[in-house]
Amino acid sequence: MKAARFHAKRDVRVEDISEPPAPGPRQVVIRNSFCGICGTDLHEYAAGPIFIPTDPHPYTGAKLPQVLGHEFGGTVVAIGREVTNVKVGDRVSVQPMVSPRDDYFGTRGLYQLSESLAIIGLGWQWGGMAEYALVNDYNVFAMPDFVSDEQAALVEPTAVTVYAAERGGVKPGSSVLVTGAGPIGQLQVLAARAAGATQIFLSDTNDNRLAMARAILPDVITLNPKRDAVADAIRDQTEGHVGVDVALECVGAEAALATCIDAVRRQGVVVQVGLHVGKPAVDGFTVTFKDIDVRGSWCYTTLMWPKVAALIGKGLLPAEKVVTRRIRLDEVVANGFEALLAPAGQELKILIDLR
Amino acid sequence: MKAARFHAKRDVRVEDISEPPAPGPRQVVIRNSFCGICGTDLHEYAAGPIFIPTDPHPYTGAKLPQVLGHEFGGTVVAIGREVTNVKVGDRVSVQPMVSPRDDYFGTRGLYQLSESLAIIGLGWQWGGMAEYALVNDYNVFAMPDFVSDEQAALVEPTAVTVYAAERGGVKPGSSVLVTGAGPIGQLQVLAARAAGATQIFLSDTNDNRLAMARAILPDVITLNPKRDAVADAIRDQTEGHVGVDVALECVGAEAALATCIDAVRRQGVVVQVGLHVGKPAVDGFTVTFKDIDVRGSWCYTTLMWPKVAALIGKGLLPAEKVVTRRIRLDEVVANGFEALLAPAGQELKILIDLR
Repeated sequence: MKAARFHAKRDVRVEDISEPPAPGPRQVVIRNSFCGICGTDLHEYAAGPIFIPTDPHPYTGAKLPQVLGHEFGGTVVAIGREVTNVKVGDRVSVQPMVSPRDDYFGTRGLYQLSESLAIIGLGWQWGGMAEYALVNDYNVFAMPDFVSDEQAALVEPTAVTVYAAERGGVKPGSSVLVTGAGPIGQLQVLAARAAGATQIFLSDTNDNRLAMARAILPDVITLNPKRDAVADAIRDQTEGHVGVDVALECVGAEAALATCIDAVRRQGVVVQVGLHVGKPAVDGFTVTFKDIDVRGSWCYTTLMWPKVAALIGKGLLPAEKVVTRRIRLDEVVANGFEALLAPAGQELKILIDLR
Repeated sequence: MKAARFHAKRDVRVEDISEPPAPGPRQVVIRNSFCGICGTDLHEYAAGPIFIPTDPHPYTGAKLPQVLGHEFGGTVVAIGREVTNVKVGDRVSVQPMVSPRDDYFGTRGLYQLSESLAIIGLGWQWGGMAEYALVNDYNVFAMPDFVSDEQAALVEPTAVTVYAAERGGVKPGSSVLVTGAGPIGQLQVLAARAAGATQIFLSDTNDNRLAMARAILPDVITLNPKRDAVADAIRDQTEGHVGVDVALECVGAEAALATCIDAVRRQGVVVQVGLHVGKPAVDGFTVTFKDIDVRGSWCYTTLMWPKVAALIGKGLLPAEKVVTRRIRLDEVVANGFEALLAPAGQELKILIDLR
């Protein structure tokens, strides 16, 4: 079968590899339909291996070259003899986290926190950027009819933002700032709206992405720190001129985090969604003086998959609006990774059509 | 009357000043009994003015020289004609925050967050390091018989730590790390215990202060980062070897904050109690990856005074154990500030006896 595999930095190859074997007792084989390209995939392509293990993964044994793709769905074509949650023919969305069910966090249902965590498409032998994938039964959730194949592939990045909104305590009537208008930032705006936020600010230095955001959600208030004093503008427009209730930082940059800490009201919440590479200097005095929370937000809980799929499928969180291009697997380097790396910022989410 | 007034850095004078005038309609005059010396007072003495305004305070008009003292109690000797919450002869503890009742946060009962906030003894004409003080009716809470005069003066610093434990979500059975074994760190240990923490670690570089902590609470586990790998030692001893549920940072230092982020378990909470002067570099990746909260904790709510007084008076939080010395007002510089600044760390809380 065809699969896109990461060999090394700037070396992703679409090549023929063996199809997955027959599934083990609690495993499932999927014929993949759509797979999204994630910012994490892009970082692996441009500067990896980062998350991809160079030695065999201690829990899964996965090793280079790694089949990419962790935002995907498909149709079940084979199940192991003990599988009860799906049947052959089911359309599924994949939650890509692989970890023990019985370690400290696993026994608490917090599989995403496992010390042994592996992610399909990053540290597991199979992935979404291929015709077929072999996964565990707990990785697949059957999709109802009102969730399309494209939407099934969008559950993963959307879950990141639904979880972050939950971490931030976004609720009906909240005022929210989102920093960063990339694919996650755009989904974060929609997730804040789905949680009931009535006033949503979005800041980015890229005007094209801000224009895309206004096309996706017309009442979003866009700000560009190259022109606007973001925190002051937010205070001017929020109730009591106190700042936003919640700020969701989707860049992973010191300046954006500082803006969030500045723009949030006293006793507000800043959620760190974007991953920092360095150690940002943080205005610790203000964090204490304003009595605010800075909360990390790691991915999602794997058990929220049906809820997020329903939000998308019922139109409460129209994630498909962030899809700017659909490509074939053969094009993944030229029209996928390279298109996303182009400086103009014309693309948001690119989906690979594997049907 | 005698009062200790801040004139400038290293210039605190005990001098004769006029007694307060007759109280306004909603004001109260107190004959002070005990007043604690706070770390904030010490910072003002050693490096101030910091919180003390050099121009008249925009809300209260207070200006230099400033009567010090915001941890105090006394007996009501005069009340204004509209005062209903206390009567002459009542023993009271003072919550020292002065602010409008009707601004954005005031209307929500969150007086401590007001943009106009002034603190008695730091930005109000009167203070606790004097024979008498004039305050607002909302600044005084009558103490029940089971709260002693000394304990009434300890409500303020204790409230800081009770609020921080609440911010951290410390609950029965919690494991907790406190960094910093100064007066606030010691009270923080007791506040964690009062909230039900069953495993409490305390780290400090001063062995004498750690020994005092073991004398105050025998089952506290003390660690000295000069000798111990603090986070590793904590993981070794916590359930599942995952780290503590809550870390309460009572120093205001980058290294201590880093230890807290390292030692807390995934989805745990770090509370920043100590005030940072600089901008600490924070391991933002770990904050997100571990899905933790870093929560500022600003003082307390003024409405928690009766609850904190009851915790102390009923022996659930024996705050009086951190008192290491009682002095007279005349001694405040030599045996108060200078004793606290001495490098040996022999003193924790020093109370001034004003009776």
